[in-house]
Amino acid sequence: MKIAVDAMGGDYAPREIVDGCVRAAKELADCEIVLVGDEAKIKAELKRWNGWEKLPITIHHCTEVIEMGEHPADAVRQKKDSSVVVATRLVREGKCDAVFSAGSTGAAVTAAQLILKRIKGIKRPTIATPIPTPRGVTLLMDSGANVDSKPIHLLQGALMGSIYSELVFGKKEPKVGLVNIGEEETKGDELARTTYPLMKKMTTIKFAGNAEGRDIPEGNFDVVVCDGFVGNALLKFGEGLAKMFYKLVKDGVKEAGIIAKLGALLLMPTLKKIGKRVDVTEYGGAPLLGVNGCCIIGHGSSKAKSIFSAIRVSNEFAKSKVLDRIKEATVKEEMLQNLDEI
Amino acid sequence: MKIAVDAMGGDYAPREIVDGCVRAAKELADCEIVLVGDEAKIKAELKRWNGWEKLPITIHHCTEVIEMGEHPADAVRQKKDSSVVVATRLVREGKCDAVFSAGSTGAAVTAAQLILKRIKGIKRPTIATPIPTPRGVTLLMDSGANVDSKPIHLLQGALMGSIYSELVFGKKEPKVGLVNIGEEETKGDELARTTYPLMKKMTTIKFAGNAEGRDIPEGNFDVVVCDGFVGNALLKFGEGLAKMFYKLVKDGVKEAGIIAKLGALLLMPTLKKIGKRVDVTEYGGAPLLGVNGCCIIGHGSSKAKSIFSAIRVSNEFAKSKVLDRIKEATVKEEMLQNLDEI
Repeated sequence: MKIAVDAMGGDYAPREIVDGCVRAAKELADCEIVLVGDEAKIKAELKRWNGWEKLPITIHHCTEVIEMGEHPADAVRQKKDSSVVVATRLVREGKCDAVFSAGSTGAAVTAAQLILKRIKGIKRPTIATPIPTPRGVTLLMDSGANVDSKPIHLLQGALMGSIYSELVFGKKEPKVGLVNIGEEETKGDELARTTYPLMKKMTTIKFAGNAEGRDIPEGNFDVVVCDGFVGNALLKFGEGLAKMFYKLVKDGVKEAGIIAKLGALLLMPTLKKIGKRVDVTEYGGAPLLGVNGCCIIGHGSSKAKSIFSAIRVSNEFAKSKVLDRIKEATVKEEMLQNLDEI
Repeated sequence: MKIAVDAMGGDYAPREIVDGCVRAAKELADCEIVLVGDEAKIKAELKRWNGWEKLPITIHHCTEVIEMGEHPADAVRQKKDSSVVVATRLVREGKCDAVFSAGSTGAAVTAAQLILKRIKGIKRPTIATPIPTPRGVTLLMDSGANVDSKPIHLLQGALMGSIYSELVFGKKEPKVGLVNIGEEETKGDELARTTYPLMKKMTTIKFAGNAEGRDIPEGNFDVVVCDGFVGNALLKFGEGLAKMFYKLVKDGVKEAGIIAKLGALLLMPTLKKIGKRVDVTEYGGAPLLGVNGCCIIGHGSSKAKSIFSAIRVSNEFAKSKVLDRIKEATVKEEMLQNLDEI
């Protein structure tokens, strides 16, 4: 597969992007990289790697960059030669099989919507963020692309997430949960209460009931579905908590005596092993599901390791039949065609 | 102050409730406890403590208990002699200064609403959960009492939380944040976008802008305000994450060799010190703000230590002028009287 990578997007672009791509080009089978951005800058980074010319990496030059603070829709419309826009266009034109960007999420989503267009029947593309759990990975739909969702958006999110979980993460009959504040069908806000009975009727997914907040880190569901406001708040809250725990332990050990320091040293290999099991950088990228093309979004703070993982995920996504299956299921799940009003 | 305690509510009632109350009666100044529930059962637990008769503890017998699974409104109406209803009634009748329950949250909230009634002008009572952070404590409003909130509910939540934070936690000019998915005023769902400009106009609080998920565990605000659906999902997600981290480390050390075990042993005092700084049981109870009386709600899984903390908090709440200040501020903040329609 050929992956168009926005080389200029992200807090550590282009260096960490290039480094992650070099590793991907070396290690992944059937994976070509097209680095999109300022050719001189990209080349300067590539030159740090001996023999990069022999890797399946090419550069596609463009002149503009969309910065993090810019208004996504305005920027995408005005900067037609920006790295994220050009990379997305390469997918639409069939020159690449997937696009990856760790730049402004809003810009990447807008570019995908405007250039790749929505899959017929899908109302709103949705960001599916993989959350590592002790049992594997749970897909959170939606992580912030859509707010003020209606039931139809959550139902389509459930359908798309379920297909992605099956085809990319290899889960058989993924368990889908509706994020809610109680177990019972009657619990929750209006959106949850209206969505529950409809989701129960879906024939293309395995709906397993309400998912409370704690079910997500415990890995009790393969896919959990909620409005993007809730999903985004949850993700950032979790990030903050994890960072806070880490900082407290680090500072605690620093301030403590020699005995605690020795203890930390002896425990380190075990902690590292645990860290690896729940390492968010292992999944590096979140697919935007519901557009006509494979689009993967990375965290702005991604470093080479996350970029590598995201390229791996993009490659798997591009190889999979996710888009075809979404198209089929959207037609098959007749109910979804008649829910425009809710 | 005299605290009416629902002795029958909670996963470990009555034993852990009684144990927490015995400690509170011993250690807290000016604190009397009225244990409400089955006299025989309560006495059996009290008898395990030598000399309990000399402590400021009395028993108020009643015959019924509201179980966790019952429908709150039905149960409160039907079980007029249940421990939570009777305890709440003791506050309304002026026989106690505060009520505490670790039983069904729905039942405690409903009892407070029906028996104590709302403060004039307050639309919806709100559960304020204290979240421990490295910088102290952040108050989360609302933690699940209200869903489908309108701006007026968040504005009143901001006002009540700010007063509680000031008078009970001693924060001067508490920084209030609106939970949102971005920093800018224009970000978020309809509720957040409508609430932001109104909250900015409030004169009785110090509004400090949007609080993203990560701001909460970092302790960047003293009070954060959101709809109860979001607040509840966040709290339970955080609980689940913390438990998962703990379990992973515990299991990791168990499976590891003697060196890691020694490391864990040496590190233990430091980890315990850190644990204490972010120990949720240190705050043990969440006030229900907006009713005419001091009502504190505990986690169903509370053990003696949490119960003790909750009684301490109830005592401080009862001593404070929070209710008077809420009444004053609701009148002073004129805008709040004219927002019925939004």
